[in-house]
Amino acid sequence: MSEPFDAVDVIAAKRDRQELSDAQIDWVIDAYTRGAVAEEQMSALAMAIYLNGMSQGEIARWTDAMIRSGERLDFSGLSRPTSDKHSTGGVGDKITLPLAPLVAACGVAVPQLSGRGLGHTGGTLDKLEAIPGWRASLSNDEMMRQLEDVGAVICAAGAGLAPADKKLYALRDVTGTVSCVPLIASSIMSKKIAEGTGSLVLDVKVGSGAFMKDLDGARELASTMVRLGKDAGVHTVALLTNMQTPLGLTVGNALEVRESVEVLAGGGPPDVVELTVALAREMVAGAGVSGVDPADVLASGRGMDAWRRMIQAQGGDPDAGLPVAKESHTVLAPADGVLVQLDALAVGVASWRLGAGRARKEDPVQAGAGIELHAKPGAVVQGGEPLMTLHTDEPERFARALEALEGGYLIAPEGSRPDLMPIVVERLA
Amino acid sequence: MSEPFDAVDVIAAKRDRQELSDAQIDWVIDAYTRGAVAEEQMSALAMAIYLNGMSQGEIARWTDAMIRSGERLDFSGLSRPTSDKHSTGGVGDKITLPLAPLVAACGVAVPQLSGRGLGHTGGTLDKLEAIPGWRASLSNDEMMRQLEDVGAVICAAGAGLAPADKKLYALRDVTGTVSCVPLIASSIMSKKIAEGTGSLVLDVKVGSGAFMKDLDGARELASTMVRLGKDAGVHTVALLTNMQTPLGLTVGNALEVRESVEVLAGGGPPDVVELTVALAREMVAGAGVSGVDPADVLASGRGMDAWRRMIQAQGGDPDAGLPVAKESHTVLAPADGVLVQLDALAVGVASWRLGAGRARKEDPVQAGAGIELHAKPGAVVQGGEPLMTLHTDEPERFARALEALEGGYLIAPEGSRPDLMPIVVERLA
Repeated sequence: MSEPFDAVDVIAAKRDRQELSDAQIDWVIDAYTRGAVAEEQMSALAMAIYLNGMSQGEIARWTDAMIRSGERLDFSGLSRPTSDKHSTGGVGDKITLPLAPLVAACGVAVPQLSGRGLGHTGGTLDKLEAIPGWRASLSNDEMMRQLEDVGAVICAAGAGLAPADKKLYALRDVTGTVSCVPLIASSIMSKKIAEGTGSLVLDVKVGSGAFMKDLDGARELASTMVRLGKDAGVHTVALLTNMQTPLGLTVGNALEVRESVEVLAGGGPPDVVELTVALAREMVAGAGVSGVDPADVLASGRGMDAWRRMIQAQGGDPDAGLPVAKESHTVLAPADGVLVQLDALAVGVASWRLGAGRARKEDPVQAGAGIELHAKPGAVVQGGEPLMTLHTDEPERFARALEALEGGYLIAPEGSRPDLMPIVVERLA
Repeated sequence: MSEPFDAVDVIAAKRDRQELSDAQIDWVIDAYTRGAVAEEQMSALAMAIYLNGMSQGEIARWTDAMIRSGERLDFSGLSRPTSDKHSTGGVGDKITLPLAPLVAACGVAVPQLSGRGLGHTGGTLDKLEAIPGWRASLSNDEMMRQLEDVGAVICAAGAGLAPADKKLYALRDVTGTVSCVPLIASSIMSKKIAEGTGSLVLDVKVGSGAFMKDLDGARELASTMVRLGKDAGVHTVALLTNMQTPLGLTVGNALEVRESVEVLAGGGPPDVVELTVALAREMVAGAGVSGVDPADVLASGRGMDAWRRMIQAQGGDPDAGLPVAKESHTVLAPADGVLVQLDALAVGVASWRLGAGRARKEDPVQAGAGIELHAKPGAVVQGGEPLMTLHTDEPERFARALEALEGGYLIAPEGSRPDLMPIVVERLA
């Protein structure tokens, strides 16, 4: 036996609530990456971690071992500081689209390596692919050049970053070991630290449409990630933000691009503007740039200029018309009153079922599918007035989408006031 | 999707401490057997069961689903009742060898489907294969014929019995999910119930050389199995028996055959005789046969007659000389005193390292390797007197075997009395 450890001993240690040693963690991640620890062994270990937890020290070592399983990017050659953002995923969360060019326009380089959507949460790359000509895949050289020239890039992460995490992420998905703070935090942070950003802002969603349904869970995840980032020398801040209800008035790929452009043009829904500016301020400050307020830069139109150059640099036409779904169906308010609840998860699942999202990672998405909201919680509505419009290319999808919306919104008698969380609930640094 | 359940939902239910439904259990066992639930999914589920447990109802259904994954034997055509024994495994545990022919000589048919050894516990088939010519594999027809003619058969279990358990057992072995009462109990009982015996006696070992180190664990395992047996209509009794120290004076394949023959000849170590008779009485009573005392049958030599016919029926020569190891090494008592401890695990591991056992199921075993004990706990010894003799064909194995014995025996000043458990500690029915 040339291996320094036996996988069964490592699994048994965590099963029996022992703390794994640095050497055990280094070995198990490396051996898993090269196939010497089998998928069924890692899955037993993941379940033991899920149920018995990991200390902050174990999580830090686990994260570091996943980073060392692959390459690391290095932005130190750029003429400006870098700042990155990660969102834990929500419904209608198009914030990356206006945010990256806005922060670039403030003088900070934004290397935004993004993913595709799975389940009820959308993916940034799926959204941008609604723009005719735009391509998600760049070489490392192209990415560096664009960061220097434009200041912002949103593209697919290459296969070389944290390959252990890629393998483990796919395994967790089929073994019921996804929703666990140590594994989520190490997965996110290994990718973000390997990307080589100097500053990171975490947008940790909380509410029905988020991974973390309650504030305590979101706080634990956020503080775990902030410590991981700081320990790795990355300036890291987390905002806990509201995901009880969708962000903005659109959910779906092309629909969210349209809304993002509205924000860059100086309009757009107030919640999207508020969160974009709040995150931009954190990113700019984190990168050590002072004397620039992203709200002013947004108002000046320089964010929009950066957006146009960013889209063009990746082959997209910022002036092209966006895809529109073939069919639509409008949901009407059933009565007069106040919309006190519009559940993010219900809307996310409905949009997914309309074709905006995918169930398996091989599935295609419809660029035009999704939902336009005509009212948000707190709005006074009249019976028969449009509440939301559903869009899809395949009208047979409406029935199951409407099913998902059942019980997902609530109209209370006039004078009622919904109990709404603010957009930014808490800041952790 | 044609499957009625999603494996991830079943895993998540057990992960979240829910009780699995009958339909979920039936599906997951069936789908695992046909490969629709992947090894990595079953391993996550096994770890969730390990850490969160199962109710007696879940264990019963799980056992039943594993039985239904394969064929069931039917002994109802035999002219006499059947009784079977299962031991959870110990060091020097050769009891099946004298027991099966003894019970047959009492008028009860004994269909003893056995396994091979793994790790520090020996396997009945490995022991019998030390007899020149003896073969472990019989067809179902051969087995039935031998049961009718001889009354006892000890052979390898066919591949058709509880195939789900075979797959799961191999998976548990590499994923740290072996030592868990619901999974052990369902594994043992699915095989024993599928074998179709009318009566079953469980020999649940307790002590350092056993799976269950303490009485509480052994009691839990025993009572779980007794309930499973009764619920399946099998007359089931469990004896908790002492495995602090090896059974008898020999550990190793041919050595244990020799000692078993001594017992059948009316001699042998008192603990082996006592346990053999105790288990035989349970088996005979469980089969509904009265008026026959196995102790009398043993004394009459009819057990030996049945042994000779049983060995001959499977091609073995009961009069052939048994293999003897090429090399031996004697361990001497370091001082005068009382042997107060002789640890079953230490002796088992030493015997394994001498070549009597295997680390992987593909490994061969040495027929002659093992350990002869010259003293058992409670014995008064003199410094320089032989304590035990180690046997192996490969003298380079002595060093690591002696290492395993370090600290495994203890000689206390004369007059000391060791705190010994009785052979049969408790009976559960």
